[in-house]
Order: sequence, then structure tokens, then C-alpha cells
Amino acid sequence: MEKDNAQQTLTPLEKPLRCIVKLGGAAITCKNELEKINEENLKAVSIHLREAMMSGEVVDMDWSKRPGRSDICVNVNGISDQSLLNSSNFIVVHGAGSFGHFQASKSGVHKGGLDHSLVKAGFVATRISVTSLNLEIVRALAREGIPSVGLSPFSGGWTTLQRNVASADIATVAKTIDRGFIPVLHGDAVLDHSQGCTILSGDVIIRHMAELLKPEYVVFLTDVFGVYDRPPSEPGATLLKEIAVDEEGSWHVVNPAPKTMNEKVEITVAAHDTTGGMVTKISEAAAIAKLGIDVYIVKAATDHSLKALKGEVKGNIPDDWLGTAIRFMRK
Amino acid sequence: MEKDNAQQTLTPLEKPLRCIVKLGGAAITCKNELEKINEENLKAVSIHLREAMMSGEVVDMDWSKRPGRSDICVNVNGISDQSLLNSSNFIVVHGAGSFGHFQASKSGVHKGGLDHSLVKAGFVATRISVTSLNLEIVRALAREGIPSVGLSPFSGGWTTLQRNVASADIATVAKTIDRGFIPVLHGDAVLDHSQGCTILSGDVIIRHMAELLKPEYVVFLTDVFGVYDRPPSEPGATLLKEIAVDEEGSWHVVNPAPKTMNEKVEITVAAHDTTGGMVTKISEAAAIAKLGIDVYIVKAATDHSLKALKGEVKGNIPDDWLGTAIRFMRK
Repeated sequence: MEKDNAQQTLTPLEKPLRCIVKLGGAAITCKNELEKINEENLKAVSIHLREAMMSGEVVDMDWSKRPGRSDICVNVNGISDQSLLNSSNFIVVHGAGSFGHFQASKSGVHKGGLDHSLVKAGFVATRISVTSLNLEIVRALAREGIPSVGLSPFSGGWTTLQRNVASADIATVAKTIDRGFIPVLHGDAVLDHSQGCTILSGDVIIRHMAELLKPEYVVFLTDVFGVYDRPPSEPGATLLKEIAVDEEGSWHVVNPAPKTMNEKVEITVAAHDTTGGMVTKISEAAAIAKLGIDVYIVKAATDHSLKALKGEVKGNIPDDWLGTAIRFMRK
Repeated sequence: MEKDNAQQTLTPLEKPLRCIVKLGGAAITCKNELEKINEENLKAVSIHLREAMMSGEVVDMDWSKRPGRSDICVNVNGISDQSLLNSSNFIVVHGAGSFGHFQASKSGVHKGGLDHSLVKAGFVATRISVTSLNLEIVRALAREGIPSVGLSPFSGGWTTLQRNVASADIATVAKTIDRGFIPVLHGDAVLDHSQGCTILSGDVIIRHMAELLKPEYVVFLTDVFGVYDRPPSEPGATLLKEIAVDEEGSWHVVNPAPKTMNEKVEITVAAHDTTGGMVTKISEAAAIAKLGIDVYIVKAATDHSLKALKGEVKGNIPDDWLGTAIRFMRK
């Protein structure tokens, strides 16, 4: 039943989906400080998203009481239908960064076992932490006038079977978009049909939605300029600007152009060996690119990421653009 | 399609549902202060809920960083499987109180019309406000060792048609319970198939879940001792201790015993005329009682509400118990 649910036939979106954007945990939180948001980056990213997805004046949509004030300051009379916001269809998914990580790793939620008190408590604690981040991101986007609504995967019936998505209420995501809102999902603790529970990552959520909702392109916002052939801190590290993915999902670097066949292989192997998390990212990105959907991995809050979010690098990658484009190319 | 979804055939719960409890907005927030939680009441209610639903030692499940601290204080080594928490099956639903009300009423979310900027912005603002309350309630429960998980109705695909529930992912609520968690839902802004959007109240959510999940009893925690024959502040106001509901859903007071038929009618009419919100509450409660499910309306954070939560008034109502019991009684 769950499998059917995951592969449900969906009513197509009223207007095609333009972009799924991942706000990487490293880009929007302070990596080395527990449960701390990188406010500066989050604000810059929210402004960029607004520029990429909508026009018209900014209407503050977070009408909560602000710290140190006793009432709510919002000029509702200033909101006219002229300020009506025609946003293009975006989905935002964010990672956890320094939220949830402590709770999940201390309790081993990803390994399952809900009959252990520690895992059960850790599951509750992880969800509290990641949903508190989700709320803050929804708020940040709403303040910039983005009609954002939080869609927590656990609440939306996302479950896994051996860590693959087994069920997910994609219909609610689609309805949310059709009504002109921007859904904001996140990596979450979820129920797993084989091991009881696990962590469902934002990247897996994106791949699943990309398959079903077919966005024009996908943007991963991170804290480095893109994918390098070795850790970016090492001397001589080269940014891989374009990676091609074929029908079988295998990938190779096309820019910088490999001088010889041998060198090409070396780059691939080097990336496998030394960049750790980046290889997982390339694999997820390659699985999306295989569907014919362009993927851009870019540094958050830069002109380069703004270009990617606007879809300006879709046809032709400008020479001065810094980022990694991963695209489908027939063998 | 949505209607089918609402009337879906459910796999029965592994263990019967004991209680659905409503944390009334008036009981857990400060009515006259915007977005302010009544911390004292919320803590007392959380402790009562813990006593009513589980045994064993208290395991703090909110591992978030606390204000003024730079790291997370939780002794995970102290959590053994001996502290494993066998909770009985409860569902918590809370109202909005002083959260969401400002946002919803300023924008008219309940009247629909998402093509108006003000309504759209108000929808976003309302959800931010009510989900921030939900997060704080989940935290308060988790701190008392209740394995609480937030299930936001909007995220769970709850939609309405002319304000009646049109779809709802009850399967996720059931799965959450079966895995030993306590789902925490709330009144929310949702999509409506006729008018675009509306406010789905906690009371309607409870009625819908009571029909499908058949709890043994339902408890409404509020800020007065129960239902009175006139506003409780008026001299001579009498607490209606027991109300009987028949097959057709019509109700009458059985305790205090009406002396004459005329007086009985008068009490009913008086309640209709003067107590406003309470009549809606009795109607919702009567709809639940009609299903054969006892409903108790009690004052939060009192011995009376603790007795109701524990199910101790189910068979026989003690003379010194203050509250209103609404029960099915054949005509």
C-alpha cells in the first residue's frame, strides 16, 4: 500500500513547477554552533528567492509579535490587491545543519529501534529541533513577502522502507503550489517500515519530488562555490563547472575539459576519494539530471546563486559564473 | 476524491484509543495578551497528561538549546530501556487562543478568497502563529516525558468543503499512535474546496477523529469549571453537571435534575441565548456523545480535570466533582 502511495498518479500541476531549491544546512545555519541560524545568509537567500520567484511590492507575511514588543505591527490597510503576488512555482527544501544533528546522532534515530527509550526520546527531540528551524525559515521567507507554508514531511505522511521513500503526500504539496503558496519542506525524522524509524534527508525528498513533479531545474545552495576535484581548501583545487550525466546515470566532467582520457578518470576517482559528502551530493544530483532536469550546485547568497535561481544559466553557462552545473547528455 | 479520502477505511489501531483531549486556547494562552502562553497552566496540564497517560520515570525529550546556554544539557546515558514509556493511546488537539486570532481576523482567512493579497498574507501569518504555538506545546509535553509529535493539519492534507472536513490523513495519525507517540494537532488555516481557504477549528478536528478513531472518552480542558446555565460570572449561575444526548442528537440537562418540564426548557433556552461560545461547544460535544463517547468539559489544571483525564468519572460521577459530563442516553 505504501509503495502504491509513493507511486501515486498525480493530477498535474496547474502551472509547471519551475524550480526546487535546497537551502543546505551549511548555508543557513552556523555549522559549529548548536541550533544557531546564519541570519545574514538566511536573509540574503530569502531576498534572492523573492527576486527569482516573484514581482510586485514586498508584503510582510510574518505578523507575529516581535521580541520586546507587546503588540503586532503590521499595516494591513497597506495591503491592496495591487500588491498581489504572482509567484512562479517553487518548492523550498532545507537541510538541518546544526539543528537536529545533535539529537539524531546522540540517539541513533537513523538506525531505528523505537522500542528503545533513547531512540524514541531522540526521535521526539530531533523533530522538535528540525521543526523549530523550519518555522524560522518559513518566517524569514514570509518577511520578504514569499507566501511560504511549512510542510513537515512526518506530518505529510512521508515514510520510508529501508530508507527509500515508501509513502509521501505529494498531492498536498501540489495543491499548496496550485493555490499560489511556496511549500517549505525539510529533512525530518520519519517512520520506517523495516527498522521503525530513520532520518529522511532533504536531498532524498528533493529527488522524490523531482521525479514526480518534474521541475525545470533544481538548485542546491551550499557554502562553497560548487563541486571541486578535491577539498576546496587544498592548493590547486579545481571547480568542476559542468558535469554530464548519461542515460545510465554515470557522470563525467566536461568543463574543465579533460585533456586526456586518463586525466578524466583521475578527477572522478579523486572526487570519490577525498570530498566525502560531495560524492553523495553528485550521486543525488546525477539521479535528478538523468531525468533531464538541470541541477546547479552554487554558493548561497552570491550573484552566482541568484543567476542559478533565476534560471539564467539554463541555456548557456556564462564564463564568469562560478558553480557546478550537472546536466543530462546522451552518450 | 477528497470526500473519499475523508471517509477512508482505516486499518484499526493496534491498541484502542483511550482519549482525545482538547487543550482549549483559553486554558493554555493568556486570552488578553497577544501570542502569550499561560506557562503555569501549560506546565500543570502537561504534568496531568503525563500522570493520566503513562507510568515510569520522566525522560526529558526536548533536547533543544535553552535560552542563555551555549550547549545542550541532556544526560542521554541516564536513559535506559527501564525508563521505557508505555503510554496509553491519547491524541492531543489544541486551540489557538491568543495565537492566530489576530492574524486570522485581520485578514478574514475564515471567509476565504485567496486571490486577495490580504487573505493570502493572512493565511501565511496565521499558520506561522499557530504552528509556533504547536511547537511550544509539543516542547512542554516532551519536557514532561510525553513522546509528543506535532502533526499540523495543513501538512497532513486536512482540507474542507463548505467548512466541513473534506480530506484528512487520519492514517498518519493512527500510525503515529501505533508507534507509541502522542500526536499533537491544532486548529489551523487550511484549503477549502468551495471558498479557497478557511479556519479549521480544533473542535471540528476532534469530532472528525472521534468518528473515525472511536476514543473511549473525550476531554475538553477550558478556563471555567464546565457549562453553566448562564455566564458563570452572573449571580446564581448553575454548573450543568450532566447532559444527556439522545439518538437524534438533541440534549437535555439531567443533573441538576429539572424540577418541572418547563424549567428544563428554560435552562436550554437560556444556555442558547446567553453563553455564546458554550452552545457551539455543547453542539460539538453532543455530536460526539451521540456516537456513544463520553465527553467531559472541565477546568484545566485542577483535580477535577485530572480525574476526567484518567477516566475516573467514566462510570460514576463523584458528588464533589466539578465539570460537565455529556453522555449518550437512549430516549
